[in-house]
Amino acid sequence: MAVQLNRGVDFPMVDLANIAYYPRIFDLAHRFFEDAWPHICDVRYADLLLVRKTGFPVVHVESDFHAPLRYGDTITATIWIDAIGESSCTWCYEFHNQNRELLWTSSQVTVCVNMESMKRQSIPEDLRQALSNCKRDE
Amino acid sequence: MAVQLNRGVDFPMVDLANIAYYPRIFDLAHRFFEDAWPHICDVRYADLLLVRKTGFPVVHVESDFHAPLRYGDTITATIWIDAIGESSCTWCYEFHNQNRELLWTSSQVTVCVNMESMKRQSIPEDLRQALSNCKRDE
Amino acid sequence: MAVQLNRGVDFPMVDLANIAYYPRIFDLAHRFFEDAWPHICDVRYADLLLVRKTGFPVVHVESDFHAPLRYGDTITATIWIDAIGESSCTWCYEFHNQNRELLWTSSQVTVCVNMESMKRQSIPEDLRQALSNCKRDE
Amino acid sequence: MAVQLNRGVDFPMVDLANIAYYPRIFDLAHRFFEDAWPHICDVRYADLLLVRKTGFPVVHVESDFHAPLRYGDTITATIWIDAIGESSCTWCYEFHNQNRELLWTSSQVTVCVNMESMKRQSIPEDLRQALSNCKRDE
Repeated sequence: MAVQLNRGVDFPMVDLANIAYYPRIFDLAHRFFEDAWPHICDVRYADLLLVRKTGFPVVHVESDFHAPLRYGDTITATIWIDAIGESSCTWCYEFHNQNRELLWTSSQVTVCVNMESMKRQSIPEDLRQALSNCKRDE
Repeated sequence: MAVQLNRGVDFPMVDLANIAYYPRIFDLAHRFFEDAWPHICDVRYADLLLVRKTGFPVVHVESDFHAPLRYGDTITATIWIDAIGESSCTWCYEFHNQNRELLWTSSQVTVCVNMESMKRQSIPEDLRQALSNCKRDE
Repeated sequence: MAVQLNRGVDFPMVDLANIAYYPRIFDLAHRFFEDAWPHICDVRYADLLLVRKTGFPVVHVESDFHAPLRYGDTITATIWIDAIGESSCTWCYEFHNQNRELLWTSSQVTVCVNMESMKRQSIPEDLRQALSNCKRDE
Repeated sequence: MAVQLNRGVDFPMVDLANIAYYPRIFDLAHRFFEDAWPHICDVRYADLLLVRKTGFPVVHVESDFHAPLRYGDTITATIWIDAIGESSCTWCYEFHNQNRELLWTSSQVTVCVNMESMKRQSIPEDLRQALSNCKRDE
């Protein structure tokens, strides 16, 4: 099941045309990514990183900017895992605003690494199972 | 001819693993994009935006993260225009570090808009000519 | 009555020593400032800015950094108004972490301006009353 | 002798009123702080931090915001050391724009720490001497 989460577009996100500066949309996506871990895998990303020394840095990104995110908007992110391999998995994002307008889509390949060596490693079995269950809703 | 520009990786760009937080790589790319305008079109992007009321927001991004950007690195960005249409053009980026290691590549479709209406418009002729000349070096 | 609000310390806030980069503590304070408006004055800061064209930019800041904010911490901000004049008012912030450790204190003088002219103006009566009631708890 | 350095106000620094968002002025000050080290102490701050494991985090800040920093401005920072103790020193900043208008002033107490233990330590003698010579010009 896909995860749905909400965050507001804060003042610091927008530029002088009242449009979110595009690198901050990736920053917002990352914050949703962190928020999603307890829902998908019942673990805080902070604990995954700092205690289990396991991280999922991004290695490939594709994104379409359909319409602007504006100050005061409430963004609903729909997040699911599209594909999962031995050490990598692909996260998909759809952002809508409070009027159900589609604003932004992205697919992002992340690789599981050991945070001490920064070397690629197999996705741990408990996480793999939970991530596999986070599929797009039909 | 492609443009080559340098910027350092400052302290605020990196995360606790001493790797640039990926949205800040897009931020860095945007700063290089601004820096490139005087070289390509002999105009400051600030003047384009504020005086000519013409902007080039990003509508599509693809990026590969080949190796980490680390604090203290000097990044050389190679920037060229890959394709230019009636109102859109595609910017290509290659980032290398001081050891000539390839770190990051991206192609980004931008659309020419009127900054007051935020409507798509044809790329002005003087800019089109200059942008067309900014080709990848053979 | 002072307002109490919570926000987490996200991954992008910390530096390579796992300590919040200090300008991002001011950014966090600003986000709490925005969050506080509905509690104090029953208005979203976005509506104040965009609809009523009234803003409160900062003109003077004093801050003490008592202990580091770390990734994964939950910050409780206690916010109150210390002084209110014709057009300016002073916001006070205390940040504690989940262990009730005092991390950061700040007092920030803001000036009421018309967002179109950016000129100083008297604080509107309805806001003044509500801001005056937001006092430090004894 | 005080140090003078220049940096532009980039697009991502300003808000929808075309005024630098105030936490990003602190971020700009930090980047000037990094830029100043080679001039004052003939060392890159990156090397100080990563090689000598010595850092100077901020513990107290006072700042006045005299006039807005706007997109496209060129900021000249004048930086000097006001006071130097056993383990702490006070950095002073004055920001002017291209019209020699005074925009921002700040004094910031930093404490010398060992980056591995994050414990306070005496300022190393070579740095102390160089920092002591960076006085306000009469």
